Amino acid sequence: MKIAVIGIGLIGGSMALALKEKGIAQKIIGVDANPLHQQKAIELGLVDEINELDQAVTKADLIILAIPVIAAENLLEKILDRIDRQVVIDVGSTKQSICAVAAKHKNGHRFVATHPMWGTEFSGPEAAAKNAFENKAVVICNKEKSDVDAVQQAEKIYTALGMHLLYMNADAHDLHAAYISHISHITSFALATTVLEKEKEEDAIFEMASGGFESTVRLAKSNPAMWVPIFMQNKENVLDVLNEHITQLRKIKSCLEKDNYAYLAELIGDANKIKRILK
Amino acid sequence: MKIAVIGIGLIGGSMALALKEKGIAQKIIGVDANPLHQQKAIELGLVDEINELDQAVTKADLIILAIPVIAAENLLEKILDRIDRQVVIDVGSTKQSICAVAAKHKNGHRFVATHPMWGTEFSGPEAAAKNAFENKAVVICNKEKSDVDAVQQAEKIYTALGMHLLYMNADAHDLHAAYISHISHITSFALATTVLEKEKEEDAIFEMASGGFESTVRLAKSNPAMWVPIFMQNKENVLDVLNEHITQLRKIKSCLEKDNYAYLAELIGDANKIKRILK
Repeated sequence: MKIAVIGIGLIGGSMALALKEKGIAQKIIGVDANPLHQQKAIELGLVDEINELDQAVTKADLIILAIPVIAAENLLEKILDRIDRQVVIDVGSTKQSICAVAAKHKNGHRFVATHPMWGTEFSGPEAAAKNAFENKAVVICNKEKSDVDAVQQAEKIYTALGMHLLYMNADAHDLHAAYISHISHITSFALATTVLEKEKEEDAIFEMASGGFESTVRLAKSNPAMWVPIFMQNKENVLDVLNEHITQLRKIKSCLEKDNYAYLAELIGDANKIKRILK
Repeated sequence: MKIAVIGIGLIGGSMALALKEKGIAQKIIGVDANPLHQQKAIELGLVDEINELDQAVTKADLIILAIPVIAAENLLEKILDRIDRQVVIDVGSTKQSICAVAAKHKNGHRFVATHPMWGTEFSGPEAAAKNAFENKAVVICNKEKSDVDAVQQAEKIYTALGMHLLYMNADAHDLHAAYISHISHITSFALATTVLEKEKEEDAIFEMASGGFESTVRLAKSNPAMWVPIFMQNKENVLDVLNEHITQLRKIKSCLEKDNYAYLAELIGDANKIKRILK
């Protein structure tokens, strides 16, 4: 199968690597607006060739859209205009908005909305990693809107990548994603700006920073070009979770202000229940 | 050298393991109020024997206090009452308060205030890990208040554990610790309660939760018995940082509410500057 990967960054590049390695793709055609990324993707062996979009779409059997979510939507229309037999999947972190675009298009039934639940705080082709998706979940949304063969194609490639398949509506996906991914990024961005704002002795942070700090602040390195569009598209869910998060922080703050340490212990005990979910 | 470890949990147990392995301790005497921990510490080979406090203090050359910070302060007085030649070090996450206790005691010059910057979200003797401290920092506070030989003893054991030594005043330590450790725990606790409060579909979280969620919420498993006393003792610094953190979250919230995505991108760009500190 010939696969076109549009956007050869962290996700697109890692998928390209894995699809080639697993023997799913005989050829990977890369498409990227950034000439430096094009060159790097060839150098790193992520893709076999670089094409313009039209040429890539014509040649490919499967098209993977792996660019920031709002750009992906805009491009999806163009791609759907140009396909007949091909399958198009996206890999974005929001699903309602892109599913709405596909629903309005005459070729929308060739599109499968997917979200492989893997990522790092890095971006660009150099961030592409081997075995990135293994044992992670992939969410496939609104599958009843896609052709059966298109869904099977998507299932086949994700299964080959070692992922387990979850199915849900785009609405449910966006709500859950706000909880398990988008809010973590927001708290991490805010934690980084808090520290950088207030703590002038950066050497001390650098020297003392231990595992706890690193793990909570790591996501703050994430790229605004990817994340701003996600927050725009999932604004309502994200605001809802963010309001609740601020409420929870204010409860802790109030415990400290009032020296109510019994209640603080209770809140921490409640937080400990996350062990039920995260082993 | 005979070393008494008071509190054979995550930190005490890991130090016991390392001090034995590096040949610094010929004998490790464990002291723990919890009979289950006593038994486990013997079973796991963390300690050579379990003693009552008085006996352990009498026999030991060096005493390591590794219990929650308020309990450590209370016990420090008792231990200082009973020593002559011995060195006592603590390993707690706050330093001003315990240094004040030592400063008032006639044997306070035998005490060295230290904070090895390593930990995990787990607790108890089973959480003890090998090579835990290697390449991490240890902070030694107010060293001019301690006898020269006592400081040298502390430096010797931490150097043997592979740690690099930092020196600062207890006040500066507590301020920096609020930024690089205590606030991370608070956001993590609040993130866990946010998710558990609002997200009823725990199966969905469990299935979808990817690396980002895990890394920001991991600390929420941490033990209230350890953390409530830390927050009590470092209340002013923690409140200061927490207020700033809530301010930063509200800025992000306001960007979303007002669809001010240019400013949101700028805030994320600011957060990205954490790369200067965390590689």
